[in-house]
Amino acid sequence: MKARSHPKASKKSDSYFLRTAILMALDGVEKGNSPFGACIVDSFGEVIAVGHNTVLTKNNPTHHAEINCISHACKRLGSWDLSGCTIYSTTEPCPMCFSAIHWARIKRVVYGTNISDVRNLGFSELSISNKKMKDLGKSKVRITSDFLRPECLELLLFWKSKDSKTY
Amino acid sequence: MKARSHPKASKKSDSYFLRTAILMALDGVEKGNSPFGACIVDSFGEVIAVGHNTVLTKNNPTHHAEINCISHACKRLGSWDLSGCTIYSTTEPCPMCFSAIHWARIKRVVYGTNISDVRNLGFSELSISNKKMKDLGKSKVRITSDFLRPECLELLLFWKSKDSKTY
Repeated sequence: MKARSHPKASKKSDSYFLRTAILMALDGVEKGNSPFGACIVDSFGEVIAVGHNTVLTKNNPTHHAEINCISHACKRLGSWDLSGCTIYSTTEPCPMCFSAIHWARIKRVVYGTNISDVRNLGFSELSISNKKMKDLGKSKVRITSDFLRPECLELLLFWKSKDSKTY
Repeated sequence: MKARSHPKASKKSDSYFLRTAILMALDGVEKGNSPFGACIVDSFGEVIAVGHNTVLTKNNPTHHAEINCISHACKRLGSWDLSGCTIYSTTEPCPMCFSAIHWARIKRVVYGTNISDVRNLGFSELSISNKKMKDLGKSKVRITSDFLRPECLELLLFWKSKDSKTY
């Protein structure tokens, strides 16, 4: 007998949500930003916020895709507590963003390319992986890494191929 | 012969700037926020931004004092690059804020109480010290710890003594 799903449950998959984040990143690149996007999904599988990096266009070094996305989600829900939500990021969240995910009580992060990929492109990342942050900080955030990695790598290479870019 | 200072140089000291951050934290507590304040000073010794934690009143888990203060400073300067600046924080910046300080290219952080002090008060900090973040991430940010620690501890105890508070 087939299990019945929650009536509000979405049938969209991790792939759908991470591809939404990739589309957001491409939107950001078109606007002159760095190639990073994110998407937050609630426990019913509904997208509650999307965002891309706006460090360059907003002149704010904290405006990473994940921070923007968390801010949008919290504004929408009227709460700083995103318990039960999952965040999808085109690249492994930097330590700032992983810590913000922890503070927001997000239960899971899913990402494509990793911090070393973007360090190799010239970004001045603190080279501390999400797994290291989780282990050292005793965080409960679950991590799914290297998801749709080829597509996320293609996004970075597309950005790299552009004539004009700023780090 | 006494060295001549830069004509624009401020004679204010680290104590003055960290006490400014303490006053900001007290202002935040009066408004219903957690007891954390920050202050950013440029290379001439002039205060360019102050801020306190607004997680509770703005419903945003990323609105720590340091993140708010960096945002204010960048808005004022019209740049995401705060090279040469120093940030003063009443408590050791959490890993999110330390990473934001790194991204903003701030050269030095000065703080009073440390992460374990606020963990003991019930905040769900990732217990990774700034020194650990710096060493692991190979950051150039200079760290001055335990500065005016008794005054910063007094601030935390004042907040703890209040009848109503939320974490």
